[in-house]
Amino acid sequence: MTSPSARYTYLGPEGTFTEAALRTLPEAATRELVPMVSVPAAFDAVRGGEAEGAFAAIENSVEGGVNATLDELATGAPLMIYREVLLPIAFALLARPGTRLSDVKTVTGHPVAQAQVRGWLAANLPDAVWESAASNADGARLVQEGRFDAAFAGEFAAARYGLEPLATEVHDNAHAQTRFVLVGRPGRPAAPTGADKTSAVLWLREDHPGALLELLQEFAVRGVNLLRIESRPTGVGMGRYCFSVDAEGHITDRRVGEALMGLKRICPQVRFLGSYPRADETAPQVRAGTSDGEFAAAADWLARAMDGRV
Amino acid sequence: MTSPSARYTYLGPEGTFTEAALRTLPEAATRELVPMVSVPAAFDAVRGGEAEGAFAAIENSVEGGVNATLDELATGAPLMIYREVLLPIAFALLARPGTRLSDVKTVTGHPVAQAQVRGWLAANLPDAVWESAASNADGARLVQEGRFDAAFAGEFAAARYGLEPLATEVHDNAHAQTRFVLVGRPGRPAAPTGADKTSAVLWLREDHPGALLELLQEFAVRGVNLLRIESRPTGVGMGRYCFSVDAEGHITDRRVGEALMGLKRICPQVRFLGSYPRADETAPQVRAGTSDGEFAAAADWLARAMDGRV
Amino acid sequence: MTSPSARYTYLGPEGTFTEAALRTLPEAATRELVPMVSVPAAFDAVRGGEAEGAFAAIENSVEGGVNATLDELATGAPLMIYREVLLPIAFALLARPGTRLSDVKTVTGHPVAQAQVRGWLAANLPDAVWESAASNADGARLVQEGRFDAAFAGEFAAARYGLEPLATEVHDNAHAQTRFVLVGRPGRPAAPTGADKTSAVLWLREDHPGALLELLQEFAVRGVNLLRIESRPTGVGMGRYCFSVDAEGHITDRRVGEALMGLKRICPQVRFLGSYPRADETAPQVRAGTSDGEFAAAADWLARAMDGRV
Amino acid sequence: MTSPSARYTYLGPEGTFTEAALRTLPEAATRELVPMVSVPAAFDAVRGGEAEGAFAAIENSVEGGVNATLDELATGAPLMIYREVLLPIAFALLARPGTRLSDVKTVTGHPVAQAQVRGWLAANLPDAVWESAASNADGARLVQEGRFDAAFAGEFAAARYGLEPLATEVHDNAHAQTRFVLVGRPGRPAAPTGADKTSAVLWLREDHPGALLELLQEFAVRGVNLLRIESRPTGVGMGRYCFSVDAEGHITDRRVGEALMGLKRICPQVRFLGSYPRADETAPQVRAGTSDGEFAAAADWLARAMDGRV
Repeated sequence: MTSPSARYTYLGPEGTFTEAALRTLPEAATRELVPMVSVPAAFDAVRGGEAEGAFAAIENSVEGGVNATLDELATGAPLMIYREVLLPIAFALLARPGTRLSDVKTVTGHPVAQAQVRGWLAANLPDAVWESAASNADGARLVQEGRFDAAFAGEFAAARYGLEPLATEVHDNAHAQTRFVLVGRPGRPAAPTGADKTSAVLWLREDHPGALLELLQEFAVRGVNLLRIESRPTGVGMGRYCFSVDAEGHITDRRVGEALMGLKRICPQVRFLGSYPRADETAPQVRAGTSDGEFAAAADWLARAMDGRV
Repeated sequence: MTSPSARYTYLGPEGTFTEAALRTLPEAATRELVPMVSVPAAFDAVRGGEAEGAFAAIENSVEGGVNATLDELATGAPLMIYREVLLPIAFALLARPGTRLSDVKTVTGHPVAQAQVRGWLAANLPDAVWESAASNADGARLVQEGRFDAAFAGEFAAARYGLEPLATEVHDNAHAQTRFVLVGRPGRPAAPTGADKTSAVLWLREDHPGALLELLQEFAVRGVNLLRIESRPTGVGMGRYCFSVDAEGHITDRRVGEALMGLKRICPQVRFLGSYPRADETAPQVRAGTSDGEFAAAADWLARAMDGRV
Repeated sequence: MTSPSARYTYLGPEGTFTEAALRTLPEAATRELVPMVSVPAAFDAVRGGEAEGAFAAIENSVEGGVNATLDELATGAPLMIYREVLLPIAFALLARPGTRLSDVKTVTGHPVAQAQVRGWLAANLPDAVWESAASNADGARLVQEGRFDAAFAGEFAAARYGLEPLATEVHDNAHAQTRFVLVGRPGRPAAPTGADKTSAVLWLREDHPGALLELLQEFAVRGVNLLRIESRPTGVGMGRYCFSVDAEGHITDRRVGEALMGLKRICPQVRFLGSYPRADETAPQVRAGTSDGEFAAAADWLARAMDGRV
Repeated sequence: MTSPSARYTYLGPEGTFTEAALRTLPEAATRELVPMVSVPAAFDAVRGGEAEGAFAAIENSVEGGVNATLDELATGAPLMIYREVLLPIAFALLARPGTRLSDVKTVTGHPVAQAQVRGWLAANLPDAVWESAASNADGARLVQEGRFDAAFAGEFAAARYGLEPLATEVHDNAHAQTRFVLVGRPGRPAAPTGADKTSAVLWLREDHPGALLELLQEFAVRGVNLLRIESRPTGVGMGRYCFSVDAEGHITDRRVGEALMGLKRICPQVRFLGSYPRADETAPQVRAGTSDGEFAAAADWLARAMDGRV
């Protein structure tokens, strides 16, 4: 029997890009990988102790943020991000053996896939009717069952569902990537690698016109660059947002820590989502005056000034 | 035959909240309302001259921005927003006549609906399996066809699909609203009403750490409040975003016009999406020094100063 | 013999407003008060250990900053401010006994005095010739010696120089005040009183257009109000300035300390000039999120976040 | 008889650096140059129509702003600056013929001179007693009359007062320069030269903590660099300041004009002091997005957007 600490859940079914991305993590080789029906289900398994980690897409370079993941991280019992994975996205059009491209009248796949193959479809199957499936793998299954003629999915899904690719490397945008995160119960973040990012969710003071500007200034004044900022509704009414952000650097970097404390003081709520290695391994730009050494020197100077040793 | 100028497309099928929202507009009564299979199809009909307007959801107070609408407005041939509609969202659980709640094993609906009835489902149908449909109305149709036991949709859809409500007023969040926009080909914005908003898409200079802060300062220094800001990927690669924004006021307000010109100068691209009446009829907060009168007085003063009449 | 620790120097000669202001300090009663010929001389006596403190005007509400004092504090061996005194300024026109107002053809006094009696002179002695003296008391001495007909000085100077007031309470501006500071060798600042100010001199990065704005943002982002900011040339060439500032609060206030550290990191040089009680006993405005308690809570939160206890 | 339009007043007496600086202006050769006893007197002659221009020092690279000039420009009937002159400052120590350096027991000169020869005096005449004179030329006259042994003044003053230099090129700081301005009644500023500056006096909203920051942001958001900012008391009480500023560029530059209008809207009072050629002939740094061409293009774009031609 597998212990919970040896199990990772992920947004299933099997055969999706999510599973492919998860398998790029070395530690996945030693875990039981358990597909779940939804992001909430995958994350709740971690919250409840039945799994050590959960893996899900958080952002696509064409479609944007994955709301289910963003919102699961922003609400409910706290979770933290420990790893991220970047995966280039290219689809295969899968059909039952014997199907020709000209036979395809109905096509399915995840709505995100639809957005990324729209141009290809217009050029190659202009008359095909699209109907969305809950996942790309689910679309493949529906083709297997005969409900649709073809499905867009990862080529790796073909074998699992007894399908054959009619086309591969389909993507309207050659830069398409999906970013995935591995989340776990809150714990000490991994040690800084020199190329880290820090994620948080920030709530704004209501009815305070400059609140977002102030929030950005807490980062800017400490020289912390934002990599991503995404507004999400708080659910309490139209026009009320919180912001999901990724910032350059690690919580143990002094500039990041001071920025987070500043945010903690001005925001009604801050949820720290972790510091973890950047998948693109890009080292941060550290502006003059914001290195750990300069922070430490300034703290020493202040301590001396308080003692009159100026 | 209906002339194009008398036709509005909308994201179909019939019987969705979108149609219900569209019918709240007085002008809808004199238009042919044409359901389309997708937001791009609805918008392209306007671009191509086959319709005068297109109507689609742009934001939900629980689920956030509607990516298809945001992205269609940001790319392709320009369109402008002329009206917005706010609709409170409450679902009915629709089933074939004779179905009891305890009979429901499979449930369908649009993914956005799922997010808004998740709590209700957990409490009332904890074991029901969810499968997403392309729209709520499509879900109702699938129930009619017997593919699923029940669908979440607007109560108004029951009659159309021969279904009966097992439950009504279902929503996890009592504040849930969806915001819809009526778009048309670019033209002169409606005259200001005193409670208007202005929408635009703004691209940031790449590799410029403070670019978002600068963008917000263009608004702030003219006292223009932002109502919404939403990052969207530009599609050229992970980490590249544009921002879809709604600001308080009308393009003919001097403070709004000057802010837009400032943005036009610092952003590589600005797409003006229109100025139109706010559905919530909230008048803007006009900070001291930013009224049209004060702008005009300052311009007069500058003209005199240039002449030495100080 | 008086020990150095029992001696205060001040900008002499005796009989000036400076001496009058110094005598308002309770501790002055137990010190030997030694007039000096210049601010540098007074301050150097402290630097050299011959005196415990030095007292000089730093700012006049009509004439502005006192350059000699500002520059002595900004350069040379460090000194710190321990006390400030506010003194309303009103002049008497002093003359040798027997002189009538109509006899006065030449008038003297310190240039600062001239600025504050200009209106009175224009109205009452329009034809009198003004020649500046090194101090008001020195002007009185020159009148005693017969070099001028009358001098503006404090009324308290009349007796010392054998003169009589031709007019009293002379001031063009009823709000005129002079602010004086007591400086000493660097030491631990006095404990906070709840109504303190903190003084510093800040050098800007050269050729960095937004450097002053950044400097102000270090204060603003921590909610620290500036009470005074005064540019002073650095002496290395036209257009190069440092800034002498007074901020609300005490160096031991967390918001003030963090702002000072931020300045220390971005400025090529920061000279802390002390934290001391405000003479006007005005308590600071503490913006939400900037109290010591909120700083401490944010630090605790950060420590927990670093441990994963979120 | 000379017409008023052919007369420039200046802060006298003759033989000062001010006169020397004034004579560097080509137009001075065709004007009657009239020394006045004070800056107010020199400026009032212009206000009253008795002179076309007035010339006075406004800033010294060692001593800072010249308060009399700054305050005369900030108050009273408006004047405008039309030209500026930079003059390197070096003093000669002037004495009556036959005097040796070792004979010098008393030294005089303007207080500003004292600040710039302090180091030289300490090294060469450590025991000499300093007494300030109303001007350097006045000090020379007092030496001529025998009241003091030596005076610091421009070497050019020696002949006029029958004195001889005991030392020349005396200055503690090799970068010492004084900046002078030629002011006149308000009129159309000179045409832009491509290397201009714009001067103004700005009053802050009272009791508005961030008012100075907002003021700087009006410049920053339009990419207008500040060359000088100097606080001056408004005279209504301790802690109330206005700011005398020089900005890069000409009022007819769109970025400068828009910044001035922004200031006009947020400040209770703005006094435009003119746009005029920079004496150092330094062309401005024009940040991307702030050229006149970009302003015009943005205005065109806005006009099109208002018409729906996007």
